[in-house]
Amino acid sequence: MTAAATASTTANPGPLSATELDDIHAWWRAANYLAVGQIYLLDNPLLDRDLVAEDVKPRLLGHWGTTPGLNMVYAHLNRVIRERDVNAIFLAGPGHGGPAAVASTYLDGTYSEVYPHITQTTDGIRKLFRQFSFPGGIPSHVAPETPGSIHEGGELGYVLSHAYGAALDNPDLVVAAVVGDGEFETGPLAASWHANKLLSPVTDGAVLPILHLNGWKIANPTIPARIRREELHDLLRGYGHEVITVEGDDPMLVHQAMAAAMDTAIDRIREIQAGARTGGVTERRPWPMILMVTPKGWTGPKEIDGLRYEGTWRSHQVPLTETRTNASHRAMLAEWMRSYRPEELFDADGRVIERIAALAPVGDRRMSANPHANGGLLRRPLILRDFRERGVEVTAPGASIHEPTRVMGQYLLDVMIDNLDNFRIVGPDETASNRLDAVYATTDKVWQGEILPVDVHLAGSGRVMEILSEHTCQGLLEGYLLTGRHGVFSCYEAFIHLVDSMFNQHAKWLKVTREIGWRRPVASLTYLLTSHVWRQDHNGFSHQDPGFVDHVVNKKADVIRAYFPPDTNTLLSTIEHCLASVNYVNVIVAGKQPCFDWLTPDEAGDHCARGLGIWDWASNDEGSPDVVIGCAGDVPTLEALAAVSILREHLPELRVRFINVVDLMRLQSAGEHPHGLSDRDFDTLFTADAPVIFAYHGYPWLIHRLTYRRTNHANIHVRGYKEEGTTSTPFDMVMMNDMDRFHLVIDVIDQVPTLRSHAALLRQQMVDARAEAQRYTREHGDDLPSVRDWTWGDVGPDSAELTAAANTSADFPTA
Amino acid sequence: MTAAATASTTANPGPLSATELDDIHAWWRAANYLAVGQIYLLDNPLLDRDLVAEDVKPRLLGHWGTTPGLNMVYAHLNRVIRERDVNAIFLAGPGHGGPAAVASTYLDGTYSEVYPHITQTTDGIRKLFRQFSFPGGIPSHVAPETPGSIHEGGELGYVLSHAYGAALDNPDLVVAAVVGDGEFETGPLAASWHANKLLSPVTDGAVLPILHLNGWKIANPTIPARIRREELHDLLRGYGHEVITVEGDDPMLVHQAMAAAMDTAIDRIREIQAGARTGGVTERRPWPMILMVTPKGWTGPKEIDGLRYEGTWRSHQVPLTETRTNASHRAMLAEWMRSYRPEELFDADGRVIERIAALAPVGDRRMSANPHANGGLLRRPLILRDFRERGVEVTAPGASIHEPTRVMGQYLLDVMIDNLDNFRIVGPDETASNRLDAVYATTDKVWQGEILPVDVHLAGSGRVMEILSEHTCQGLLEGYLLTGRHGVFSCYEAFIHLVDSMFNQHAKWLKVTREIGWRRPVASLTYLLTSHVWRQDHNGFSHQDPGFVDHVVNKKADVIRAYFPPDTNTLLSTIEHCLASVNYVNVIVAGKQPCFDWLTPDEAGDHCARGLGIWDWASNDEGSPDVVIGCAGDVPTLEALAAVSILREHLPELRVRFINVVDLMRLQSAGEHPHGLSDRDFDTLFTADAPVIFAYHGYPWLIHRLTYRRTNHANIHVRGYKEEGTTSTPFDMVMMNDMDRFHLVIDVIDQVPTLRSHAALLRQQMVDARAEAQRYTREHGDDLPSVRDWTWGDVGPDSAELTAAANTSADFPTA
Repeated sequence: MTAAATASTTANPGPLSATELDDIHAWWRAANYLAVGQIYLLDNPLLDRDLVAEDVKPRLLGHWGTTPGLNMVYAHLNRVIRERDVNAIFLAGPGHGGPAAVASTYLDGTYSEVYPHITQTTDGIRKLFRQFSFPGGIPSHVAPETPGSIHEGGELGYVLSHAYGAALDNPDLVVAAVVGDGEFETGPLAASWHANKLLSPVTDGAVLPILHLNGWKIANPTIPARIRREELHDLLRGYGHEVITVEGDDPMLVHQAMAAAMDTAIDRIREIQAGARTGGVTERRPWPMILMVTPKGWTGPKEIDGLRYEGTWRSHQVPLTETRTNASHRAMLAEWMRSYRPEELFDADGRVIERIAALAPVGDRRMSANPHANGGLLRRPLILRDFRERGVEVTAPGASIHEPTRVMGQYLLDVMIDNLDNFRIVGPDETASNRLDAVYATTDKVWQGEILPVDVHLAGSGRVMEILSEHTCQGLLEGYLLTGRHGVFSCYEAFIHLVDSMFNQHAKWLKVTREIGWRRPVASLTYLLTSHVWRQDHNGFSHQDPGFVDHVVNKKADVIRAYFPPDTNTLLSTIEHCLASVNYVNVIVAGKQPCFDWLTPDEAGDHCARGLGIWDWASNDEGSPDVVIGCAGDVPTLEALAAVSILREHLPELRVRFINVVDLMRLQSAGEHPHGLSDRDFDTLFTADAPVIFAYHGYPWLIHRLTYRRTNHANIHVRGYKEEGTTSTPFDMVMMNDMDRFHLVIDVIDQVPTLRSHAALLRQQMVDARAEAQRYTREHGDDLPSVRDWTWGDVGPDSAELTAAANTSADFPTA
Repeated sequence: MTAAATASTTANPGPLSATELDDIHAWWRAANYLAVGQIYLLDNPLLDRDLVAEDVKPRLLGHWGTTPGLNMVYAHLNRVIRERDVNAIFLAGPGHGGPAAVASTYLDGTYSEVYPHITQTTDGIRKLFRQFSFPGGIPSHVAPETPGSIHEGGELGYVLSHAYGAALDNPDLVVAAVVGDGEFETGPLAASWHANKLLSPVTDGAVLPILHLNGWKIANPTIPARIRREELHDLLRGYGHEVITVEGDDPMLVHQAMAAAMDTAIDRIREIQAGARTGGVTERRPWPMILMVTPKGWTGPKEIDGLRYEGTWRSHQVPLTETRTNASHRAMLAEWMRSYRPEELFDADGRVIERIAALAPVGDRRMSANPHANGGLLRRPLILRDFRERGVEVTAPGASIHEPTRVMGQYLLDVMIDNLDNFRIVGPDETASNRLDAVYATTDKVWQGEILPVDVHLAGSGRVMEILSEHTCQGLLEGYLLTGRHGVFSCYEAFIHLVDSMFNQHAKWLKVTREIGWRRPVASLTYLLTSHVWRQDHNGFSHQDPGFVDHVVNKKADVIRAYFPPDTNTLLSTIEHCLASVNYVNVIVAGKQPCFDWLTPDEAGDHCARGLGIWDWASNDEGSPDVVIGCAGDVPTLEALAAVSILREHLPELRVRFINVVDLMRLQSAGEHPHGLSDRDFDTLFTADAPVIFAYHGYPWLIHRLTYRRTNHANIHVRGYKEEGTTSTPFDMVMMNDMDRFHLVIDVIDQVPTLRSHAALLRQQMVDARAEAQRYTREHGDDLPSVRDWTWGDVGPDSAELTAAANTSADFPTA
């Protein structure tokens, strides 16, 4: 519903006294002045003299259009923070309006505190202007360099999910999130409105969306600005909001309307929270939001060379592009900047005058200094138990089976129990399907929609967050981590590509923050990718893509990690390690299907600490292998071991070294990744000249890429996914991609020179075995029993046990 | 608004006579029967005898939950098609309900036509059942193998954008698109509702969204099912729709309501179209949509082992998982299947009885046989002029400059003029920013929102489609191509990663369709990636990512192509080539900034036909180079040529071979990619042993990957983007990534053994030159004039001309 007390520009006088109005308008003028100066000026920051060509930057870069609107919001947020002691942070969806954030945080003093050379003097303003979008200076966006920011805004669509993530478990916090009307058109943003269905009014804080309808994108009007206003209101109500409208182009009227709107919004938030926390209200109520309709490039040049600028797309970036060379443009710039009356805003030394400075909140209440926006300050390390407490007993390699992610769920249960307010799991409807449902013993899935008797594990508060939007999941988790908390994103492997681009932005953010002293480390973003390429039983080709890791490794080595635990205990060790880490993106790929246990908990811990290593019990090379069989991933490890067992039986004299890789980055050279093995260690393991047959979970090229500089790289032969797959059984699937045990044996025979003639018979047997396995599968719809029920040595579980385990493999919870 | 004549289950009797009701219910029972049989049965297809264990598949895979709803929609679409001669196709957002599409297309006869071994007999039904989600059989989704499908639905979110793409320029077509309520939560789907703002009621067809609220995802309720119904209606009205609700769980009542709803929907569509086409209505009117609320797993087992199944998430996949081993489950399956009374549906030979078969539309009016869903049947090759007509005159290499994409815009203008009804450009607000705005001489941007006097190039119909959702752009183009038309997607390079996952799905679709005889080739999907990593002047680090090509090359070589034209004429040649191609994804990376012209139109045509080649005018190797300098991309080509000019001046005796690569896949081995050079040709060009210094547009590893198997690969040294970049000038940017001319010279010196001591002085000069260039940039905010104004030889444009061109580089149109 639209607020009964809709603020509007016709409601005058508003809540501001004449003095207050005058003061807040002066702040806004100062912020706008400082923003314009950043875009244009090298020197003459306070226009103490005539503007000359040399005062203007040779390359004019940045975005003016959104800036005055952002400044308006910031100024009025400051007012309610000050008047009501609100604990708030600010997220600028239109982050390209970086000049606004920089100007506002300079006015409130934080900027000079974190960057002492940017003083509150004329010289400080000169440096502030010069550095903006200047080589060696600061970015044009609301970047990690900007105090108070957890959101760069360069790629559009994530401001609301970041905001909701920040608000979780911060019951006192108000997260103001400006949504640009261009960003409004994006898919991730459109989905993220519904994050309010996952926000508890009792235990979480509030998000205040401010949809800024300035009407234009780069070269087009925006859809929300050009549908009937009632249609837009319908849409926003449908998203679960009460809409408070502020509309106008007269600043003094808009100030009053905005002040009233902010008051109403904070009142509503407090009402909803009080109702839910102490008033016994249980139904979901519409949260307030502000619809701000003001001109693009407001207060900028109205017209340039006969074309309209203010209030059109032409104000998007730099309205006066020829200011350095064109005297009339330069005069227009001077006139524009003087229209803010800088002489009333700054004293003779360039210090902002006291009545303006006094409008900023104090200390940590400044949005730019709020520790929630530098989450590392608030981060408490997770309390993590030794993974061995949840380790599964392993009497011998392959003697037992477990579903790795199901056991990991028990470990996550412990994490949940020990960390009641700063750990969450997000996922698109897959926590149970991915078999992490043990956590429901202590928590629920948070759900603000209707709850019916048939529902299980749904509740008004809970630490598992499921919404069928990978974008929203990723955004929520990023927001949660950047404000100092911890979490895991569990996702089907193929569909994590949906957030490739969000991952890019987060990895870039981490890379930059590592170089900024005042930014404190945040918890790593950890992905569990499961329901992976090799086991898409209910689905098929469209669900098969192991390429996320390929995408990840293009980012800075400092911030990326990739793990392929081959069994349950190694998965446990890996997750413990990842949850303790900071400032990384960890990618863990592990299956949910029943899987042999290869290592005891202690062995797993040691193996994961090394990241890779020889499995002696699967090797017989006595220090001098004829062939190295390497593997990374659970299914590849199974096939590689099965291949070893064939070789043992048929070619017992062949010296085989078996190497399993958990930490993929160990393969890379030490100079290229912090985890990289030294060349000496690599050569010791993989030899300088023996053939290496490597079974890899993903696209084979990544192994070549990582080992490209190794001595033995020309002898590394990789099998992996080669984009072949359709409806198939598990073994049929590996056969289609030539990664099956039989083909690995063929590879060994083909690559070990002495075997080429010697083992021709075995080679033919392998070819025949593949044909037979395929024939059987096509006839019976299941894998050949001798393949399906294979075990390592004599110690494995019998086939009945395996089959029983496999029958629990439906992708939905049955309880 | 909700339809005045809202259909509802209480509105009884509805439009169906008793006989019609009985018949359509029989069709639905038959479809449901055939769907269940596919999921469970190997044999005994018509239950002619007791069901035994061996009749049941050993691995039960698929999704029952959505299936009865899809069957209901299909049956009622058939009715309106038949009664009103509607030209319609069907898109199943919940494409995992593949059994429904297969069943329906079997009932209407198409399935047996395209797969003659699936006869209309008991044996045919047996094979139909057996093949489903079975090794060597068909996928469980609505895949390319399914007649009538242009949408696999495996990855959720794209059904509406595909539907809108299909409807464009097909004024007679109705595209029915079922949106699952899980899919409803995704970002891409949420954004795509607004595609109705780009659909002309005059020249385009109609999309009929059918939101199927069955209430559940895999393990959770859905958000739209658990918000207040009035809130959902608000949301859907806000998306621009009139909502017609069909709700119930009594099939006979729902049949009546659905029939009425379909009638109303088609009436509304015809009213809107007639109003716009001949009635003088110009305002946008809400399009009808159907909200179908029926139980998940409707008509399936109500309860199993004490747990509720029908109407809950437990029906999502296979309700009875132990049917083969558990006799009581098997009995429940038999009871379930017999509840559809198969004996009334099929005759003794297994042929569907005539009164059911007669419900299908005839011939091409069957949705499964509609040629729009096999777009290659309708595809007319584009009329393409020789690109040389738009070629720019080049008197000597580097003697002139053009903005490549601006000239390409003129070529696209010709394409628009010559292909009035089957070519579109999509992009997220960037057609003008990417300088393709010449096309506005003949067409506009289509826009159904309000149009104001200040707007330019906006109109109610037009062939450029801009919406700030890369997902929607991609989906629209895919839908347009799959229905037999042509187009280009122009996008900022960094943000094309937003559609990584959509690209995956389209590439997989193409890969599979190439193997299906009855699928005819469709036009390639061509990306123009511009505003690329090296020139993010207004933005910065967040806008720098050249990794889309890395992602692309993981897909099947048969379907992917990547081009890096270095100048205007090569870009023209490339786009002509790409627009003429079929069944590929073409990625073209080209800048929009002013760029030297290197090749004449004829030279460009020859160079692009070869894909790569030696530029003699930049080489002096006389057949025996000391070093090969390779490059791919416009900025790398510039830096590489500048490096050559330094080498010529300072080391004139050094024999340099200069190779430019346009078609990146030429680098790969012939055995790995159809475009791959033979090893002999590669060795002839790149030599077997000379050092190769390669300047590449993207992440360097891709060049190593592509050349991994080449003789000389150990001598290839690649410079490219290494994730370093922030606010910078163009030359500063290449320096940060060590891809600048000075560093390339250093690389040459370091890699050519004879130069290491011989050219030590030059090496130091290069180091100094880099330091000086950086110092200048940091001081002046612009590139060193000697760098910025560099020209090739003596023939280049003077620096004033270059500077003037650079000053037109604002990212927004000024007219």
